[in-house]
Amino acid sequence: MISDERLDRYARLAIEVGLNLTPGQDLLVEGMVEHAPLARRVARAAYAAGAGNVDVVYGDLHVSRAQIEAGAQARLGWTPPWMLRRIEDAMERHAALLSLHGNPEPDLMAGVDQARLGRSRLLDFQALRVRALNEAMLDWCIVACPTEGWARSLFGEPDVERLWQAVETAVRLDEPDPVAAWRDHIARLQHRAASMTGRRFDAIRFRGPGTDLTVGLLPNSRWCSAETQTAWGQRHVPNLPTEEVFTTPDPRRADGTVRSTRPLILPELTVRDLALRFEGGRVVDITATTGAAVFRALLDIDEGARRLGELALVDGTTRVGRLGMTFQSTLLDENATCHLAVGTGLAVGIDGADGRAGQDLRELGANVSGVHTDFMVGGPEVEVDGLERDGAAVPLLRRDEWLLP
Amino acid sequence: MISDERLDRYARLAIEVGLNLTPGQDLLVEGMVEHAPLARRVARAAYAAGAGNVDVVYGDLHVSRAQIEAGAQARLGWTPPWMLRRIEDAMERHAALLSLHGNPEPDLMAGVDQARLGRSRLLDFQALRVRALNEAMLDWCIVACPTEGWARSLFGEPDVERLWQAVETAVRLDEPDPVAAWRDHIARLQHRAASMTGRRFDAIRFRGPGTDLTVGLLPNSRWCSAETQTAWGQRHVPNLPTEEVFTTPDPRRADGTVRSTRPLILPELTVRDLALRFEGGRVVDITATTGAAVFRALLDIDEGARRLGELALVDGTTRVGRLGMTFQSTLLDENATCHLAVGTGLAVGIDGADGRAGQDLRELGANVSGVHTDFMVGGPEVEVDGLERDGAAVPLLRRDEWLLP
Repeated sequence: MISDERLDRYARLAIEVGLNLTPGQDLLVEGMVEHAPLARRVARAAYAAGAGNVDVVYGDLHVSRAQIEAGAQARLGWTPPWMLRRIEDAMERHAALLSLHGNPEPDLMAGVDQARLGRSRLLDFQALRVRALNEAMLDWCIVACPTEGWARSLFGEPDVERLWQAVETAVRLDEPDPVAAWRDHIARLQHRAASMTGRRFDAIRFRGPGTDLTVGLLPNSRWCSAETQTAWGQRHVPNLPTEEVFTTPDPRRADGTVRSTRPLILPELTVRDLALRFEGGRVVDITATTGAAVFRALLDIDEGARRLGELALVDGTTRVGRLGMTFQSTLLDENATCHLAVGTGLAVGIDGADGRAGQDLRELGANVSGVHTDFMVGGPEVEVDGLERDGAAVPLLRRDEWLLP
Repeated sequence: MISDERLDRYARLAIEVGLNLTPGQDLLVEGMVEHAPLARRVARAAYAAGAGNVDVVYGDLHVSRAQIEAGAQARLGWTPPWMLRRIEDAMERHAALLSLHGNPEPDLMAGVDQARLGRSRLLDFQALRVRALNEAMLDWCIVACPTEGWARSLFGEPDVERLWQAVETAVRLDEPDPVAAWRDHIARLQHRAASMTGRRFDAIRFRGPGTDLTVGLLPNSRWCSAETQTAWGQRHVPNLPTEEVFTTPDPRRADGTVRSTRPLILPELTVRDLALRFEGGRVVDITATTGAAVFRALLDIDEGARRLGELALVDGTTRVGRLGMTFQSTLLDENATCHLAVGTGLAVGIDGADGRAGQDLRELGANVSGVHTDFMVGGPEVEVDGLERDGAAVPLLRRDEWLLP
């Protein structure tokens, strides 16, 4: 039983730092049924902060599994229209959206038909979310919500207390003044992003066991970090925690092979030992010891799903990295190490692209897709270099340490 | 821990008898977070029965309470547009709707401001539901879902097993063939309803301790029972259990006083010892020992909320009645004894009104309102007579026994 006081501190952090919720602003909350204890305290904290209306919708993995197991094939992946309406309406009303993250039963989909699992994604819903993100029409934030099932999957026993402590460390709730700690942290990341943008590297190269991949950048690729802002100018921190600097690469230039250094936790299941080969920006070969079929189905969703939309650098000294554990959660694990994403490019990662989506974004050089899926590629054995236009290599990361000033 | 086998039997009854779900038909499920164990088995049973898509949405009383306690007054009772869209869309698609009923924390709203509580109803949502019902545009059913909180409130301890057994008896799940038992039961109630319609009583009179009320019927008032059908001809049983015969009375003719014989469980809180005085069809005086303010606010929602929309007769020999307990749930308690409802009349209760709502329904003599709230008025000490047009009284119920053949 997690104390209300603990949930309240976390809820306040999400509302103050993550969403920067303004008085009168409406808040949507989404999570799984198992996240109700946190969602309830978020609702209280939001109203205390002056929220207009707090609208909580819970998903249920068991209901999803029932459809994957026995529902008509033709209806798999169908999005009920109200789910789109809810997001569209939130965009119109300049609302905030808090997503509670963390699979409460990571093994629930084990044994179900992988092809049907792959078809069960709500693509219309996902595409709308990607558009909302690129048009900067939602004040959004994702936070992790520890549950017994997640803890059991990590530790072999339902030690939620241990998972809570790890998450609290990751999001700086162990600081006496977490809001001030976040202010300092955001400034440090902003400095790193600005210095990367100033270098105008032509490409980034990853080299390590099973990995030798060069990813081209665009002339107007911009490096970003923790904080972003909505189309109406509201600053927010979309991920808690966040430790990365990231940019939108050139989707036509990625060549070589890359081996994922952490399990990739998809909504459907876990992909282990993923390895990809790129040619001319496209994924041309996929292997994995589990989940390969689901990952292939993901890359078949549209043409853009096969190309890169994000490149992010993270050193090993971050709070998440120092915890030395794999959370089996992209939100947390991607802040322990460098990562790439297949799927849509991020408008914020390109100069002059703010608020653009779809064809508008493509014209500025970015990849466009209805999906965006991160996978981890960094670690102590992976060397990362920035390549200048003349081919000179500038070491960026060695033994997980950041080398630029 | 309730066994899956038990949940599955109940889920199948709801789907086969309650909804009479057809292959390919979509199903909406609504309940509280605490109802997830049943909702999940309903989803499985529905897909096994050929459901197209099963869409489960959970409400959360704690989130509602957070708003009532600290949300802006102007936003209380605001319905998020997606909630309307979801129902409208279900009506268009001729979908089914299963509501899981039973307050999982009956005492949660104790102590909150009653006026704010009264304003927190989602009136737009309720009005749409009333319209859907009268236009017969949803294949719907309500079933009870036992929870620990509900059991604790009834028995002083979280004896869910005892509550499950009571509910199973009430809905005939103790029969070797519940579906066949329901077929017989429906036929018996249809016979009773037809014989009441044949009598064409001018009014019904209730007399008992604190009660002397005469409610006028319309010349075209029709008596109905368990089974109804949608506008597209799909038979279904909207309430499990159901033991009543009911009709839509004349909203202009109700005179006298009536004392409610059971607590009235509103979504917000419990109204105890409710007593109403009617003049010319209108409620002109309300008293109650708890919840009077919330009940008054309910009657102030619109003009029709003050007049009667339903009159239902139930004898004491029903399965619910014989259990001899108060469930603190309208769904169950209304099937133990006679009841009335303030608010909208039911189209099925008037000859020639099928599928009508709003002004169309009003023109046929029925009350019209955005609300419909039942309260119990029967019991062993309450005598019920049918009044002929010439004033002659025909005894219908004495000592809770049905007297007509």
